[in-house]
Amino acid sequence: LADSNRSQVIIIGAGFGGIKAARALRKAPVDVTVIDRNNYHTFQPLLYQVATAGLEPGDIAYAIRGIFRKQNNVAFRLGEVTDVSLADRFLWMSDGARLPYDYLIVASGAETNDFGVEGVSEHAFGLKTLDDAVRIRNHILFQFELCNSRPELVDEGALTFVIVGGGSTGVEVAGALMELFDHVLRKDFQRSTIEPAQIILVEQGARLLPSFNDRQSGFALKKLERWGVKVELGCSLARVESGGCVLESGKSIDTKTVIWAAGVRGASPRGFDSVPVLSGGRFQIRANLSLESHNEVFVIGDLAGAQVDETFLPQTALPAIQEGRHAGCEIRAAVRGKKSRPFKYRDLGQMATIGRHAAVVELPGGLKLRGYVAWLAWLLLHLIKLIGFRNRASVLVNWVWNYWTFDRTARLIFGHPVDRNSASK
Amino acid sequence: LADSNRSQVIIIGAGFGGIKAARALRKAPVDVTVIDRNNYHTFQPLLYQVATAGLEPGDIAYAIRGIFRKQNNVAFRLGEVTDVSLADRFLWMSDGARLPYDYLIVASGAETNDFGVEGVSEHAFGLKTLDDAVRIRNHILFQFELCNSRPELVDEGALTFVIVGGGSTGVEVAGALMELFDHVLRKDFQRSTIEPAQIILVEQGARLLPSFNDRQSGFALKKLERWGVKVELGCSLARVESGGCVLESGKSIDTKTVIWAAGVRGASPRGFDSVPVLSGGRFQIRANLSLESHNEVFVIGDLAGAQVDETFLPQTALPAIQEGRHAGCEIRAAVRGKKSRPFKYRDLGQMATIGRHAAVVELPGGLKLRGYVAWLAWLLLHLIKLIGFRNRASVLVNWVWNYWTFDRTARLIFGHPVDRNSASK
Repeated sequence: LADSNRSQVIIIGAGFGGIKAARALRKAPVDVTVIDRNNYHTFQPLLYQVATAGLEPGDIAYAIRGIFRKQNNVAFRLGEVTDVSLADRFLWMSDGARLPYDYLIVASGAETNDFGVEGVSEHAFGLKTLDDAVRIRNHILFQFELCNSRPELVDEGALTFVIVGGGSTGVEVAGALMELFDHVLRKDFQRSTIEPAQIILVEQGARLLPSFNDRQSGFALKKLERWGVKVELGCSLARVESGGCVLESGKSIDTKTVIWAAGVRGASPRGFDSVPVLSGGRFQIRANLSLESHNEVFVIGDLAGAQVDETFLPQTALPAIQEGRHAGCEIRAAVRGKKSRPFKYRDLGQMATIGRHAAVVELPGGLKLRGYVAWLAWLLLHLIKLIGFRNRASVLVNWVWNYWTFDRTARLIFGHPVDRNSASK
Repeated sequence: LADSNRSQVIIIGAGFGGIKAARALRKAPVDVTVIDRNNYHTFQPLLYQVATAGLEPGDIAYAIRGIFRKQNNVAFRLGEVTDVSLADRFLWMSDGARLPYDYLIVASGAETNDFGVEGVSEHAFGLKTLDDAVRIRNHILFQFELCNSRPELVDEGALTFVIVGGGSTGVEVAGALMELFDHVLRKDFQRSTIEPAQIILVEQGARLLPSFNDRQSGFALKKLERWGVKVELGCSLARVESGGCVLESGKSIDTKTVIWAAGVRGASPRGFDSVPVLSGGRFQIRANLSLESHNEVFVIGDLAGAQVDETFLPQTALPAIQEGRHAGCEIRAAVRGKKSRPFKYRDLGQMATIGRHAAVVELPGGLKLRGYVAWLAWLLLHLIKLIGFRNRASVLVNWVWNYWTFDRTARLIFGHPVDRNSASK
């Protein structure tokens, strides 16, 4: 593929942003190399459904080589980028390879941000990768199996599940977990095993879903509480320990399961020490998404410090997609000698699902939906957005099955060994 | 559930035999405990499709609690049986629990049999569990990714795949692997990466599929060779090493991938030292499948030494299912004071698939099918036999997709870390 006359573009990361950027370079006279540490793209908005046994991991993962099968100027490379030399325009891979570039797109996404809370990295579960999701699923299902054989473990908090963070991830996990307990595990286990199970959702602020309108937040709170989730507002975590967690108020909770959904922070390979880092680990960038110091390097997605009205864009899929497309177009323009344009974010609104028949949607025109219609809109959009017919069909089959039967066939303890002795992470 | 007046039945293993036995006890006045080390049942006949990226692991796994959801006299227990005391009628679990029984059904299946060949357990891949299958899938896909970045590894045999054993498992893996290479990976990778890939199927005997008719064997050989599989008949392995394997002839093959499909041997917990062991690790049993020394203990499936015409039944699903049903009926009869009956095997024939449009079927009446019709019969039977609507639907979606598009969406390196440095097992 490589042609020494053509510009070499390297894209680090095959998330939403990286894929869109590569696509935007489809007709550009460049050679594109997409690098990712996995051979699949993860549809992150549905990670929480894998973590709560609603979908199989394979339903939300798609082979990257399959995505670019028909795009001849893209090569894929599996591996980890260990270091980037901005000055000399090359990067190092973990297998020792040294890859030079003319243009670089940094789309390496985000990682769990513990905000310095003690014990999070050792004892809490993050939810940013497919591995994380499967680890949570296996751990939760295993707690029930454990308490089925050894009911005395309930007193140690084996069936107390703490979710930290009342943003959309936290709300989605809490709602889906309650459905798993109430509709599925209730039929799998005896009453004495399932009854003591409790879900506690801890949010530092005064309301759930802070990025949404007040009434939407109230709707989410009402729904979750009606289903039996204990929501603790204005409450933050002091630390996580091996057998529990301690709140700022001094109250401690016995639990083997703390799911950390309180936030993320941009994650990049080494080599960007000279770039100013802003809130949420975002890199300071120019209006066209390139680095101040290196106009051949673009930063997109969770790592990009793009702002609208002096507010950073959320670290979610929609900005990543638009930024990816823009970075690709910028490189195409540069190669063709055309002029650079600033990135303009088109607000498409936001949505979050709470559970069965319950979601919230806010559209940019000011239209706000709650409940059943919002839930249908959420389902439809996510189904359409899943890449590839196969995944869509499988997700649809799963959803219809789960909906009609209140069953979840994905409740398998598989793919990550659970620690069968200590019973905590 | 436990009622001291009711007989306690323990079933070790939730494979085909164990599940059928529990089902047969549906209306018996007994309490049944099914024990398995996984919380799911594995549909083993399709393991080879997971190993060759045709199906997702979840497609052939089914939550055991879901299977028995409507059978009130069954309790499930996740864990490993470490020891059985036949004399005192109880068993020990790995979590320290001691479970007494009145009747015991040993349905713990089989494990890979290396027949004493050196290096198999260290350097070859078995294919008996879902973990095995995922490990093989990840390893194979990773070899291609490796050779994509480092073409020099091809000379070390990174793209040489050796399958040992020409029975149905070996033939199925060889055929499905060739399809994966030829139809899927050929589009994913450059010509120079995919061209050197080769599959070598090694069989000790004079023909493939030895349990089938001569002409069926010839058909399988012709098909596989036409697709490009190198079939080495009358050839056995002397040993497996970290970078290759050595044949009895002294010839050595550089390879990172030896898949051992040469045979299995019955596997049981400790405590059966007093029971005579026959060919293939089978336990010697009476005509009603119980142990000579303990008529309250039944042995079924891969472990059972049941014979027809002085030949042991094959260690496959069909005998296990019939034996499971018989053992359940025997216990039901015993509890009700009715008399014991000998097990009678009903021959339902055998089938094996070679690949696209190619399978062989032998029915008990003497009817033999080859090719397209046999392949359709194979597909239909396996689809019907998969437990649960969801799995069937998902498998059907996968198969139709794979068939029409020559694509395989399950080609994900996920769920088992591959050793990225040594690149061999």
